[in-house]
Amino acid sequence: MADQPDARKAIEQKIHGFMDACREGDAESLAALYSRDAVLLPPGSAETSGSDDIRTFWQGVFDLGVKEVDLEVRELEIFGERACEVGRFTLKGADGQPLDSGKYLVLWKREDGAWRLHRDIWNSSGGK
Amino acid sequence: MADQPDARKAIEQKIHGFMDACREGDAESLAALYSRDAVLLPPGSAETSGSDDIRTFWQGVFDLGVKEVDLEVRELEIFGERACEVGRFTLKGADGQPLDSGKYLVLWKREDGAWRLHRDIWNSSGGK
Repeated sequence: MADQPDARKAIEQKIHGFMDACREGDAESLAALYSRDAVLLPPGSAETSGSDDIRTFWQGVFDLGVKEVDLEVRELEIFGERACEVGRFTLKGADGQPLDSGKYLVLWKREDGAWRLHRDIWNSSGGK
Repeated sequence: MADQPDARKAIEQKIHGFMDACREGDAESLAALYSRDAVLLPPGSAETSGSDDIRTFWQGVFDLGVKEVDLEVRELEIFGERACEVGRFTLKGADGQPLDSGKYLVLWKREDGAWRLHRDIWNSSGGK
């Protein structure tokens, strides 16, 4: 499709925005990257949906001492108004200390002309 | 799209086939439900791809005593040649004993006219 390179670039910018917001511990900006009816599917707890609950979830992560969420995009496939990103993450604490690492999948949705995280699921690979 | 009801029905049949193969402990049939370049993203280990490794993974799950994988589909959205399924799972052992439960996301791909699991990621919600 003609708009695929643009879509890819737009999503990649959002992924950088995601990592920036994490580094700044800015749960508000992070929550704003998700779609209106986004769903988080975090390990160890039930689904989280809605902007308020998503912000609270990420604030909780930062409160636990996570200072950085490094994302390594391994695949980004775009199909019209949706896109699927698969990658690896590393959570880091103070001084870049690795806390956890694993895999994630994000289903992106184009909403009001902007790409937003729509479904977000991950799990730990067991190491750091 | 005109083919959406058919796609939904076809995927739902595959989901039932998935649960049947688990009940029969049939890792071969289970692996055959995945696309050629499918990737499993299981908690606690690295990515698994390719039909042989996917079969070996599921055989390992059955060898650990999992007798049933109950899937509760909560969402199935189809976009052309891809579809996204989000749901909850319960792993059961002998006599229906619950072993683990959590959430999953499957990206489906239509390959050679058949719907197949293409990306498969899940995590435990922490309870049973």
